[in-house]
Amino acid sequence: MTGAVGFGVFSVDGDEPRVGFRVGRGVLDLAANGLGAVFEAPTLNPFLALGRSSWEDTVARIQELVPAGADLVPLEDASVELPLAVADYVDFYSSLEHATNLGRLFRPDTDPLLPNWRHLPVAYHGRAGTVVVSGTPIVRPSGQTKGPADDAPHFGPSGRLDIELELGFVVGVGSSLGEPVPTSAFRDHVFGVVLVNDWSARDIQAWEYQPLGPFLGKSFATSIGAWVTPLALLEDRFVSSPGQDPEPLPYLRTSGDWALDVELEVELSGTVVSRTNACGLYWTMPQQLAHATVNGAAIRTGDLFASGTISGPEHGSEGSFIELTSNGEHPIGLADGSTRTFLEDDDEVVLRGRAGELELAEVRGRILPARVSS
Amino acid sequence: MTGAVGFGVFSVDGDEPRVGFRVGRGVLDLAANGLGAVFEAPTLNPFLALGRSSWEDTVARIQELVPAGADLVPLEDASVELPLAVADYVDFYSSLEHATNLGRLFRPDTDPLLPNWRHLPVAYHGRAGTVVVSGTPIVRPSGQTKGPADDAPHFGPSGRLDIELELGFVVGVGSSLGEPVPTSAFRDHVFGVVLVNDWSARDIQAWEYQPLGPFLGKSFATSIGAWVTPLALLEDRFVSSPGQDPEPLPYLRTSGDWALDVELEVELSGTVVSRTNACGLYWTMPQQLAHATVNGAAIRTGDLFASGTISGPEHGSEGSFIELTSNGEHPIGLADGSTRTFLEDDDEVVLRGRAGELELAEVRGRILPARVSS
Repeated sequence: MTGAVGFGVFSVDGDEPRVGFRVGRGVLDLAANGLGAVFEAPTLNPFLALGRSSWEDTVARIQELVPAGADLVPLEDASVELPLAVADYVDFYSSLEHATNLGRLFRPDTDPLLPNWRHLPVAYHGRAGTVVVSGTPIVRPSGQTKGPADDAPHFGPSGRLDIELELGFVVGVGSSLGEPVPTSAFRDHVFGVVLVNDWSARDIQAWEYQPLGPFLGKSFATSIGAWVTPLALLEDRFVSSPGQDPEPLPYLRTSGDWALDVELEVELSGTVVSRTNACGLYWTMPQQLAHATVNGAAIRTGDLFASGTISGPEHGSEGSFIELTSNGEHPIGLADGSTRTFLEDDDEVVLRGRAGELELAEVRGRILPARVSS
Repeated sequence: MTGAVGFGVFSVDGDEPRVGFRVGRGVLDLAANGLGAVFEAPTLNPFLALGRSSWEDTVARIQELVPAGADLVPLEDASVELPLAVADYVDFYSSLEHATNLGRLFRPDTDPLLPNWRHLPVAYHGRAGTVVVSGTPIVRPSGQTKGPADDAPHFGPSGRLDIELELGFVVGVGSSLGEPVPTSAFRDHVFGVVLVNDWSARDIQAWEYQPLGPFLGKSFATSIGAWVTPLALLEDRFVSSPGQDPEPLPYLRTSGDWALDVELEVELSGTVVSRTNACGLYWTMPQQLAHATVNGAAIRTGDLFASGTISGPEHGSEGSFIELTSNGEHPIGLADGSTRTFLEDDDEVVLRGRAGELELAEVRGRILPARVSS
């Protein structure tokens, strides 16, 4: 198989939505091809809950059917929906370069990394109910902002609308309350990965976020790819991670290779503005899951855990505009001769991921003007 | 009607769970009493989605049936479940006294209130999947902590396990992405209220929370009452709120009275250790909902929004042990002669709320020892 691959939910001509497997420019209708009634559901969740051996059996069967010439629905005939009912959404902060870049911007006189950063994968809960599928238009959010020279906050559309280029993983099999999920159990719980754009209104975020973290600066929308790529198809893409200093506490230790070699790019209105790779993330997915559950928090089918912004060390490899433009001070040039600091209305952002011959489904979103202006 | 009142999910002798209405020490089986098939569901959500006129009609019908002597299931025969499938869980920080108390403890040399606090109801997203029903035992969480004198963090059971006394509201009717919910539409979306105990591990929270807010310090469990009290039964309990200075931005303005006069108490292992009232909260529920959606974030049936810790101005009216004991410096005495700073294993906490003749369902939880100790 080549091209974009993954499980998603689609419909044709207004029929009932059902689960399909995308391969390149076509979609395999799984129930119609005899893979089971679980694929007649309007979300991946019933299939996700079946567990690892069912996931692997299904992928193996697809790997027989597709080369044998199974009928595929042309991608352009398929309307996609959000592939899963998202249970809880957690967003990490796992790129050393991103955390360092933001620390330099916001706390220029101190160590850019806070003391906890190298000891644990910092994270917060986002809003599961506003996770949307690729292609959903993004209405520019309004909210309170307050500049350093302002006496009081004012209300209006965000003037610093940004993206965050992220890789997320999707939980299939849940856990019990009170029972941590060790790093070694990662593959028994996690089905696959999607690209994530964690849209961020930097001006709203800056005013609201102390002391409890981001809220309205993020909660208006988070876009994910329409097709979830199973780990079973990415096994040859796991490579060694960058290494960690200091060595983490025992519950965060792993064996084997856990960095995912996926080349990433960000396109803004037709111009590629950033290229990086997910394999540079400091904290790995099994570490993220082990940390998120070490206090006994249960996970559920449909939980989405995202990496946080993925930025590389070089200029042009940053996963957000606040980094790419040094907080808006150095605009980016686009192919049409225009420049950008943050997103303008009608801009379209596309995130792409390539894993060798395979691709992760793109995440696309266009900015609509704010609906609330006063 | 008198005593505790609200809608919840119960079963008798292992039968299928269904929706009932608790009144005092009995439960009215709603489907069995002809109120509709929607009450045969194992969660309140289908009923919540029906909207305000259905909620009010149902309450009116119950107010006829109960005084007329309808058969009630004895409360002791009813096993309760989580009353709703929680969609997203948001926790505010709306008590001026609580925010001031914590600011004094953590930032003694500065203004205890951060600059944004009087301009917007600060909030963060919590973990919906670990909201549990009253009576669920709470396993002491483990995690990373680091004292000020420690060179490095260590892993182990929390030594500073705390409560947060809160009042939450439950969304019935959702909204569309991109469309804020104005303060004037509050009653069209919100069904009712529950008491909430937002269990907090202060030592885990202190080490992890910068810069993205609380995560594992809160996500191990949040307990709610088993019976959701509809706003329709609390209309005569709305009183004027304390007043706000400065006047908030237009989207946060309300008309009418929006503070809820509910007397609250915290009992620890048999001793009442705090008494306060929800009517002292600075930010009101319609303001919280308008703020949470002003960026266009959609709400869904089953969303839970909690007030944040409710503390009054006098000693003995604080809603957490970190406040009641001045960060552990001044232990509380219990009736059995023992003292407490933070919670010990086998301690039991009960939150209670009284609204005139009516009560909100209690929230009860007992601490079990940590399962992970190294």
